[in-house]
Amino acid sequence: MLKIKLKEESNSALYLQLYKELKKKIKSELESDTKLPPIRKLADDVGVNPATVVKAYDMLADEELIYKKVGSGSFVAPDRKIIKSENGEDMLKHGQIKLSESINFASAAPSTDLFPVEDFKYAINQVLERDQGEAFSYQKSQGFLPLRKSIRKYLTKRGIDSSLNQIQVVSGAQQAIDIISKIFLDYKDQIIVEDPTYFGALQAFKSRKADIKCVKMEEDGADLEEMESYLKKNKIKFFFTMQNFQNPTGVNWSQEKQLQLLELARKYDFYIIEDDILSDLYYNQNRVNNLKELDDQGRVIYIKSFSKVFMPGLRLAFIVLPETLLPEMLEAKYATDISSGGLTQRAFDYYIREGLLDKHISLQRNLFKKRYKLMKNQIINNLPNEIKITFEITGGLYFWLKLPEKQDAQKLYEKVAQKGLVFSPGYLFSNNNRYSNYFRLSFAAVDDKQIVRGITLLRDIYNEFRGTAKNDDYSPLL
Amino acid sequence: MLKIKLKEESNSALYLQLYKELKKKIKSELESDTKLPPIRKLADDVGVNPATVVKAYDMLADEELIYKKVGSGSFVAPDRKIIKSENGEDMLKHGQIKLSESINFASAAPSTDLFPVEDFKYAINQVLERDQGEAFSYQKSQGFLPLRKSIRKYLTKRGIDSSLNQIQVVSGAQQAIDIISKIFLDYKDQIIVEDPTYFGALQAFKSRKADIKCVKMEEDGADLEEMESYLKKNKIKFFFTMQNFQNPTGVNWSQEKQLQLLELARKYDFYIIEDDILSDLYYNQNRVNNLKELDDQGRVIYIKSFSKVFMPGLRLAFIVLPETLLPEMLEAKYATDISSGGLTQRAFDYYIREGLLDKHISLQRNLFKKRYKLMKNQIINNLPNEIKITFEITGGLYFWLKLPEKQDAQKLYEKVAQKGLVFSPGYLFSNNNRYSNYFRLSFAAVDDKQIVRGITLLRDIYNEFRGTAKNDDYSPLL
Repeated sequence: MLKIKLKEESNSALYLQLYKELKKKIKSELESDTKLPPIRKLADDVGVNPATVVKAYDMLADEELIYKKVGSGSFVAPDRKIIKSENGEDMLKHGQIKLSESINFASAAPSTDLFPVEDFKYAINQVLERDQGEAFSYQKSQGFLPLRKSIRKYLTKRGIDSSLNQIQVVSGAQQAIDIISKIFLDYKDQIIVEDPTYFGALQAFKSRKADIKCVKMEEDGADLEEMESYLKKNKIKFFFTMQNFQNPTGVNWSQEKQLQLLELARKYDFYIIEDDILSDLYYNQNRVNNLKELDDQGRVIYIKSFSKVFMPGLRLAFIVLPETLLPEMLEAKYATDISSGGLTQRAFDYYIREGLLDKHISLQRNLFKKRYKLMKNQIINNLPNEIKITFEITGGLYFWLKLPEKQDAQKLYEKVAQKGLVFSPGYLFSNNNRYSNYFRLSFAAVDDKQIVRGITLLRDIYNEFRGTAKNDDYSPLL
Repeated sequence: MLKIKLKEESNSALYLQLYKELKKKIKSELESDTKLPPIRKLADDVGVNPATVVKAYDMLADEELIYKKVGSGSFVAPDRKIIKSENGEDMLKHGQIKLSESINFASAAPSTDLFPVEDFKYAINQVLERDQGEAFSYQKSQGFLPLRKSIRKYLTKRGIDSSLNQIQVVSGAQQAIDIISKIFLDYKDQIIVEDPTYFGALQAFKSRKADIKCVKMEEDGADLEEMESYLKKNKIKFFFTMQNFQNPTGVNWSQEKQLQLLELARKYDFYIIEDDILSDLYYNQNRVNNLKELDDQGRVIYIKSFSKVFMPGLRLAFIVLPETLLPEMLEAKYATDISSGGLTQRAFDYYIREGLLDKHISLQRNLFKKRYKLMKNQIINNLPNEIKITFEITGGLYFWLKLPEKQDAQKLYEKVAQKGLVFSPGYLFSNNNRYSNYFRLSFAAVDDKQIVRGITLLRDIYNEFRGTAKNDDYSPLL
C-alpha cells in the first residue's frame, strides 16, 4: 500500500499534492508496470474525494508517467530515464533503451535545480500585484520600457554604452538570430560564420537561403587571413560570431584579433553579429571583453541571452543595434510575433532591479568554475591521450574534443548512448559535414559525480570502440 | 500634502505599494508639472525608509510618469493620456496632442480590466509549486505535452478531431503565420489572401517575398469565382483566411461557401490557412463553424489564438496541421525561437484543466454581445446615413464602415485623433492601397459610455469634415 499524507492547510490544491507525491514514488520506489491502487481505495486511504484521485492520475497519464488499461486500472509506465537534449527533445525514444542512470554531456543548458525559482516566483507575484492586467496586455514591440532601462544599466556596467532606442527585447537568442536574418538576408546573400558554429544559427541562415562561407576557428579567434581573402572577392552582409567561449569550441577571441576584426569590418563594410551567451562565465581572469565594447563605428549588433546562466525556458534576450536599423527591427519583430511576453519582461526587470541577476550570475560562475576544473582534470588524466582537447579554454560550458582522424564521433555517440551517456557529435556544428572526428562535452547539466562517472564510462567505451579495450585502472566512483 | 497610507502586513513590498498609490494620484488628481514631495519628507510622512521612496520614484520615472530636475526634485510628467494601438505602440506621440479623454476604436485587444488576472496568478503559483525549476527549462519545440492534451480536448468539444502529433504550440497567432510562411514560401511563390485582410499577415508574407493575390470579400465569404479564375492560371501554395468574423470586415463565411472552398482546394491542390481568433464570439446563433471541422482531406492548417478573448500579452496560440508536415514544422519552430515559454504553457494548461477558460470565454461573449448591440445601434441611429455598415455582422469585435467614394478615411482619422478618438483606416488592411474610404471601428477596448461618446464625436467631426456640420441633436452622454 502507498503511504501518502497530504496537508489540508497547504497552499497547493489536494490533487496537485497527490500528483507530486505519486510522481516522487514513481520516480524512486515503484517498478515499471506496478498497478496503482484503484481510485476509490486510494481516495479512502488518503482521505480525499475520488475526483481528486482521478485528477492526479489524469495528470500523471498526460505526462506519460502512468498508463491506463480499460477495465483493469492504472499502471506505472515502463522505466525510461529519458535524456533531454538542449532544447528539451527526448534524445532516446520511449522504451528503446533501458538505462541504469543517464549522464548528459550534450545539454548546454544548466540543470533545473540551479534555477532561482523562489526568487523569480517572488518577482512574478510582486509584478502581478503591481501591474495587474497590464502585465498580460500587448507590450511595445521594442520591449517593456523599464526593462530596457534596466538593460541599459546592466550594459553600462559591462562597458557597453547604448541608448534606449538601441535596445530591442526578444524571445531568446534564437529569435534574435531569426529576426536579424529577416532584416538582412535575401536569397543568395553572402555571410560568413565561424567554423564550427552553433547549428541553430546555421538553420536560421539557411531558412533565408543565405550563401554561407565558413572560416575556421583558431585558438584566439577565427582565421582572419582566410576571412580577408574571401572578403577581397565577395561582398558579405555580416559575420556571425561568438567572441567569448564560442560554441562549440570554447575559444575566447584575443583582443588583438577583436581589433583586427573591427578593422576588417570597416575596410570591407559589413556588420558583425556578436552572439553573447557565456561571457559571464570566465574562470581564469577578471572578466573578458565583448566585441561590442570595442566597437566605435556602430558595426556590431550585439545579442545577449540569459538562457545559459539563468533560465532557458524564460525565452528572453535582447539585441543592441545601431539606431538607424530600429525601424526595420521593429517591423521584423512585429512580423515575427508582435512582442515578447509581458509578464516575463516585467518579472525579469524586477529581478534585475533587485540586484538578483548579478548575484545569481556570480553564484553560477563559481559553481561552473568548479565543474570546469574537475572536467578538465578528468579529461586530461582519465581519457586516452589520443583524445585531445582541441583548444585551451578558460570559461564557458564545454570542451571541444578531437578523436584520431578516421574515427567517427557519431558512431562513438551511438555506442555510449546505449549506456546512457550522451554528448554532441561534431557534425552538428558544421555546415558541410566536417568535424566527423570531433565532439563537444558540456558540463552544464551534470554534477561532480556524473562528470567522473561519465568520463570513466566514455574512456571504457572508447577503448572497446577502437578495439583496444583495457579493463584495469577504473577510477573510483565519487 | 499627499495622503498615503501603506499596509505593513501586505504581501506587497512597501516601495511597490507606494509606487501604486503615487501612480493612482498621478493619474487621477495631480496636475502636470506638480512638484512631488522631497524624498525625506515623503518618507517621514508615510513612515518608511527614504530608500523606499527613492525606489518608488525611480520606477515612476522609468515609466515616464514623473520627471526629475537636478537640484529641484521630481515632477508629474505632462498630461498625456496616450492611446495604445493593438500591439501596445503609442498612437499619439508624447506631448504632441493634449487629450481630455481618449476613446480607442482602433484596438482589437480587450482592455486590461477584462483579464482574469487573479485566476491566472493562482494558476501560475500552483504550477510553480508543482513543477519548480522544470517550469523554466526548455520545453519541447512542439509544446508542453499536457498542454497539447488539453488542447486536443478543447478541439474535440468544438468538433475538430486531431492527434497529439498534429498540435504545435506557438507564441501567438503572428508567430504561427510567420512559421507557416517559413515552411511554405520561397521567393515569388504565389498565395491568395482575402481582400481586405489583417496587415500582420501581409507583412509576414511579404517578408518571404511572396506573390500575393487578393480576392475580394463578400457578405458570405471571399468571391470564389474570382478565386477560381485565378486558380485556373496559377499554382498557389495556400489561401489565407479568417472564416469567422473576419478581420477587418467582420464577415462570417456561409457553410455553403466553406464547402465550395474545400472543393477548390481539392481540385487545385492547395492548403488553406485558417486563422481563428474570434469564432468564440458569436452573438446571434448557437455557434459558428470553423472550416477545420469540415476538412476531411487534411488541407486546412488551423491557427487558434486566445489573444482577443483571453490575454494578448501571454503570447500563446497553437496550430493544428497535417501530421506529414510535422518534421518541417518542428525545424521551423526551432529556427524561430526553439520553443515557447514554459511557465506560460504550464499555467495555461492548468487554467484549461480547471475549466476556467470555458467559463471566461462565455463571460466575454456575453459582455461583448452587449457592446456589439450598443455599437450597432449607435452607428445606425447616430452616424449620418452616408456612412454605411459594409457587411451585416453577427459576432466578433468590429464593424467595417464605408464613407462615400472620394472621402479619405485617413484624413478623417487625422481629424478625430486630434480630439482623442482613434480607429483603423482602411488602407491598413490592403495590399495595394485600396479601401481609402473605409475604416474599422472596434469595440474591444471601450466601455458603453465611450461607445456613445465616441460615435457622437465621430458624427460631429465627420459633419464638419465633409463641410456640412450640424450643431443640433447631440445625444446625451451616458
